[in-house]
Amino acid sequence: MNAPVVRYLTGITTSGTPHLGNYVGAIRPAVQASRRPGTRNFYFLADYHALIKIDEPARVQRSTLEIAACWLAAGLDPEHVFFYRQSDIPEIPELTWLLTCVTGKGLLNRAHAYKAQVDKNAAAGVDQDNDVTAGLFMYPVLMAADIVLFNAHKVPVGRDQVQHLEMARDMASSFNHLYGEHFTLPEAEVDESVATLPGLDGRKMSKSYDNTIALFGPREQVRKQIFSIVTDSRAPGEPKDTEGSALFQIYQAFADEAETAALRKAYAEGISWADAKQVLFDRIDREIGPMRERYESLVNNPQELEKILRRGADKARGIATPFIAKLRHAVGLRNLADQPQAAGKAKAKAALPSFKQYREADGKHYFKFVDADGALLLQSRGFDSPQDAGKAVARLKQEGWAAAAGTAELASGATESQAAAALTKLTAA
Amino acid sequence: MNAPVVRYLTGITTSGTPHLGNYVGAIRPAVQASRRPGTRNFYFLADYHALIKIDEPARVQRSTLEIAACWLAAGLDPEHVFFYRQSDIPEIPELTWLLTCVTGKGLLNRAHAYKAQVDKNAAAGVDQDNDVTAGLFMYPVLMAADIVLFNAHKVPVGRDQVQHLEMARDMASSFNHLYGEHFTLPEAEVDESVATLPGLDGRKMSKSYDNTIALFGPREQVRKQIFSIVTDSRAPGEPKDTEGSALFQIYQAFADEAETAALRKAYAEGISWADAKQVLFDRIDREIGPMRERYESLVNNPQELEKILRRGADKARGIATPFIAKLRHAVGLRNLADQPQAAGKAKAKAALPSFKQYREADGKHYFKFVDADGALLLQSRGFDSPQDAGKAVARLKQEGWAAAAGTAELASGATESQAAAALTKLTAA
Repeated sequence: MNAPVVRYLTGITTSGTPHLGNYVGAIRPAVQASRRPGTRNFYFLADYHALIKIDEPARVQRSTLEIAACWLAAGLDPEHVFFYRQSDIPEIPELTWLLTCVTGKGLLNRAHAYKAQVDKNAAAGVDQDNDVTAGLFMYPVLMAADIVLFNAHKVPVGRDQVQHLEMARDMASSFNHLYGEHFTLPEAEVDESVATLPGLDGRKMSKSYDNTIALFGPREQVRKQIFSIVTDSRAPGEPKDTEGSALFQIYQAFADEAETAALRKAYAEGISWADAKQVLFDRIDREIGPMRERYESLVNNPQELEKILRRGADKARGIATPFIAKLRHAVGLRNLADQPQAAGKAKAKAALPSFKQYREADGKHYFKFVDADGALLLQSRGFDSPQDAGKAVARLKQEGWAAAAGTAELASGATESQAAAALTKLTAA
Repeated sequence: MNAPVVRYLTGITTSGTPHLGNYVGAIRPAVQASRRPGTRNFYFLADYHALIKIDEPARVQRSTLEIAACWLAAGLDPEHVFFYRQSDIPEIPELTWLLTCVTGKGLLNRAHAYKAQVDKNAAAGVDQDNDVTAGLFMYPVLMAADIVLFNAHKVPVGRDQVQHLEMARDMASSFNHLYGEHFTLPEAEVDESVATLPGLDGRKMSKSYDNTIALFGPREQVRKQIFSIVTDSRAPGEPKDTEGSALFQIYQAFADEAETAALRKAYAEGISWADAKQVLFDRIDREIGPMRERYESLVNNPQELEKILRRGADKARGIATPFIAKLRHAVGLRNLADQPQAAGKAKAKAALPSFKQYREADGKHYFKFVDADGALLLQSRGFDSPQDAGKAVARLKQEGWAAAAGTAELASGATESQAAAALTKLTAA
């Protein structure tokens, strides 16, 4: 029995070129996570966010190209997930404004990223908002719009982003409180187990330490970098220590258990550092080599990449466009011909949420649950007989939303509370 | 000889229902201004702004309906001007974000509207950002986007809005500085001569004094309100003073000189207050009566109003959509297949700004001046012969932008500095 689909959303900042540390710590686990059953995954290139820090247009463009190519080369399947560029979704800046209007300024004053800059300015004895752009200050609102536009349940983040997720929840709650239950409250998902890869000098691999290994750099460059990993001075034939060996740790991030055990043995038996580096290079190249081809093909075919991103945007807007229409209606940005009072009441009397049963081309029997306006709330799995589908419907009517587990999933854009409320409304009628 | 077209932009807040004071002080002069030759006029219903203060959806909707109907009934011609609803222009929230990223937070800290609330909080001994939404804080950025998206030259405002216009200039300058000359720097136009109408009690007519006369209320309601204007106790036959008579001042706002002189005489001759009120009612009704019919017809046909606003949005987006595409390109939100370096240079070599001469169906000869990308910069008036058009082109090439006066107008979305720079580039080539 499957639980309703859980929606995950991940923003990818389009600045810089990913290195091997980003691959091990972020890209690879995210690509693996995208394949989990029972999940729907949104990955977006956060180029509106990039504008907060980068005012070099060519760099924004180039970063977007390289980072999109990296993620696709690393195995992200744009047919299976939602993979799009933030700036292709005009619903995001529009929702940013709607959220801006329900957000207390005091909330934003307390954001860590903003406060860090204020503290820095205080220490330097300059005005507290020196060098602070409105972009830095408003960034939590843009981030909240990114998330709640797709009603994401979970946002995998680092510890430093937990507060921003809480702020997104606050904004979503304020909106729901004023205008009705439209947004799922998102939750941060902090994975403490994610590996941080040591760099060439043994410290954490990071661009700011200048100790990185290129992810999709030319093969010869990667070999040179790997051969420049700092080791101790033990000679060939002398047993070597795996403890504290950056080379060994990097190897572990790519090797399976048997491979790791073999290298451990070779260390004990006095493998030369040159040979150990060759082993590491070969192991990394086995995983990255085939990806590198795909990466280069994408970077050299920006037309194809552009097409993939536009298709992704179309797919994402399939959710975003009808949803923003609902949100606009909720706040009062309405077709003037929609009569708010009389017609609304008449409609409520005439129409109720309803179940619809039907048979698909695959021979299975399905049902869906739509609200009074005909918007899809729940979509069932396939049942072998109409009786089975009917039983599941009956259970939903009797037991409410809890009975959806294993029989039906929330439609995209619909929230649990909408579905639950509609079920209650139907049974109360 | 005509000067190049000057673009005026006016935002209309969609809150409340206009009264006679709004008509005399704002709507009537704006409608008159919309007919000035040599101007292009943008009027928009500021419903995104309304969301800062109003969280009642039905009220936002109703206000938009009534205010749109008022302006059209008062004679604004949507075929002649740009008349649109802010929330129909997705380029506005998008540009708001682009401007947010180039705006120092310190600038926003100094906005009067924000500071007024901070001062109020300080006086009350509560947190300085108590009851301040991010919407209030960010409203100058939204306002700047409203203005510079259409490269407005002039924005008619009250004295209290002058600072916000300066902020809009600052934001436009920052953007131009970072990304090239895209925006005209807008100027505030403060008209000190605009009449303020006295209300029923002689103080300024204002909803907050509860002393208003309805603009398009039922005729009987308007009559009752006019008959309740406070007067002194002089009996019929006694001469009356025009000085300090609210009735007389309201009459003046509608009457021509001869009519005003006639009422002055009647005052001196002892017209009864009842008769004077009837004279005032008749005079107002002569101007407003025909408008009231149009108003009622519009309010009762929201479908038609909706159509007018959507047509207006299409017209405005005819400017906004290509312009935001340029702005997106400028900041780096680009088609990945646009090669920034090599291709850009090759194009610059191959293509230059150019003049194109042609004949229209009206038999006149025209020219236009387009930039290297083919975007229209200048559009000429009609000339009687191709020689005349050719001479005007030659003068533009020799004397530059100054020679455009009387022969060509800036295209919408184009700025003087763009046209001037393109002329220089062409002649330097």
